[in-house]
Amino acid sequence: MRVDTMLKPMYFEDFYPGLILTSPKCRVSKKEIIDFAAEWDPQDFHLDEEAAKNSVFGDISACSAHIFAIMSKLGGFMTPGLEPQVIAGLGFDKLRMIKPLFAEDVVSFQDRIQIARRSKSKADRGIVTSHGQLINQHNEVVFEADTTFLIKVKPHSV
Amino acid sequence: MRVDTMLKPMYFEDFYPGLILTSPKCRVSKKEIIDFAAEWDPQDFHLDEEAAKNSVFGDISACSAHIFAIMSKLGGFMTPGLEPQVIAGLGFDKLRMIKPLFAEDVVSFQDRIQIARRSKSKADRGIVTSHGQLINQHNEVVFEADTTFLIKVKPHSV
Repeated sequence: MRVDTMLKPMYFEDFYPGLILTSPKCRVSKKEIIDFAAEWDPQDFHLDEEAAKNSVFGDISACSAHIFAIMSKLGGFMTPGLEPQVIAGLGFDKLRMIKPLFAEDVVSFQDRIQIARRSKSKADRGIVTSHGQLINQHNEVVFEADTTFLIKVKPHSV
Repeated sequence: MRVDTMLKPMYFEDFYPGLILTSPKCRVSKKEIIDFAAEWDPQDFHLDEEAAKNSVFGDISACSAHIFAIMSKLGGFMTPGLEPQVIAGLGFDKLRMIKPLFAEDVVSFQDRIQIARRSKSKADRGIVTSHGQLINQHNEVVFEADTTFLIKVKPHSV
């Protein structure tokens, strides 16, 4: 088992409505966009410059599965030095592709905790819902989604 | 520009409520699950056998970004011989991770058109919402999501 003794556990109690978590920025290259789309969503306008120009996007842009994956990846860098004690993801709501994510865009992910409640049936866990936004270098929201996950409560409070 | 003359275009008019589209089946290997999670969602329980055993999943299972990507990929194989004239994805709702997707599971994607309406502002397009389910070899729903996309109407009907 991988044990990272450098990280401090982050429990349900550490997630409260209004808490804002922000990821580092990441640049998304054209190669990464095309490689991801070629594997998971090979529509012409994600792969081909000319098809992209003739599409509503106007240029090569990331497919939605790639945007979702970027959100997931950046989500792992929101709590430096801390390791959220996530049990499982439950679901996602209101995912909206608001603007295209173009090649060489630099994005960060901002997540705001909306709801945090203890499980009624299981004392060792809580349910947290957050509203996340992927924001580009022009400070535009590219993508947003609400995420709901199960997380452990602090051991002494069970 | 890539032109595939073998495919017949599939327009808004071809998507009507009640239409059910089904993908081929695909097997998801443990290597693929671990490789995807290592890149996009490197939580221990997606990467490490022992951590997985100690988690609510009980075994290595695919991360949600991977499940989303699998849905996206299988979505490209739902209309053999036809090419849906998708303009853009707009959003996804009610994504639910109902059961884990384990290594070597064989899944298919079934999508049922729920709503199909012409755009009020732009005559050349319609808006379609479908309810999709990823189903495993035990006929269990692993994942579900509603998808909304913009699609061209038949040229003569604009």
